[in-house]
Amino acid sequence: MKYFEDVAVGDVSEIGSFTFTQEAIKRFATAYDPQPFHIDDEAAARSLYGGLIASGWHVASIWMKLMVAHQKNEMARARHQGGVAAQLGPSPGFRDMVWAKPVRPGDTLHYRVEVTARKETASRPQWGLVFMRSFADNQDRERVFQFDGVVFWEKRSGA
Amino acid sequence: MKYFEDVAVGDVSEIGSFTFTQEAIKRFATAYDPQPFHIDDEAAARSLYGGLIASGWHVASIWMKLMVAHQKNEMARARHQGGVAAQLGPSPGFRDMVWAKPVRPGDTLHYRVEVTARKETASRPQWGLVFMRSFADNQDRERVFQFDGVVFWEKRSGA
Repeated sequence: MKYFEDVAVGDVSEIGSFTFTQEAIKRFATAYDPQPFHIDDEAAARSLYGGLIASGWHVASIWMKLMVAHQKNEMARARHQGGVAAQLGPSPGFRDMVWAKPVRPGDTLHYRVEVTARKETASRPQWGLVFMRSFADNQDRERVFQFDGVVFWEKRSGA
Repeated sequence: MKYFEDVAVGDVSEIGSFTFTQEAIKRFATAYDPQPFHIDDEAAARSLYGGLIASGWHVASIWMKLMVAHQKNEMARARHQGGVAAQLGPSPGFRDMVWAKPVRPGDTLHYRVEVTARKETASRPQWGLVFMRSFADNQDRERVFQFDGVVFWEKRSGA
């Protein structure tokens, strides 16, 4: 994981891929989004979607899961190379989340993140703000998910 | 559940409350957001937050869970009164999600939704678009979570 000072606008990271099995779709939705078209095959077949689809919040939560794993790998790699790795801080929120296409059982999403802007912060001098566009494409290279987020990012000078 | 024709700008619905136990916080985060300050008490105590906090995606997913339950109750009530209830349709996305304050073990969030605008759609004449501001306040009446969403809403004329 780079420090804030090393982050450049235009940087793109592949953060990982995830296959949405029917089991995973139903497990998330049963706990957090039990709408018929997420948990019930027959009701889903009769819905607008014509079949089971993943909850949009599941698609977003998997982004977070992959982001954490990606960050952990980057930190391990930095330590292996004898370096020190930056921590990702909290996120104050995000904007414009779009679920552009349904995610169906068996679909594999490839998640990427692109740095769109970076900003110093007055209130937390040991952190900078990094603005990122996150997106996921399916196995047919269709864009299915996108949002613009912002996170606090550790500075080298604050480590 | 009202039909699109009955939805008015300014309508506010209490959709429900949820207490974020330590167990619930760790269960969600272990599966979807395993950052140290969501799953590990000691690491959380050393973090910026000074203690365990809920994943922002957990706070959002509970909104969805309560919304589905609220909708189900409204439909049951409509059927009980001999009426027919509208279905909520898919959401194309949302905007400006803000996690304004940390959610800690034992915090109870009260979720509400306010209709901010409504619009006809050309592409799907049996549905209208309803714009909603959703928010959650904690037991101290502090605003901890907010976002602006939009959903397709069934029309009476399309039922």
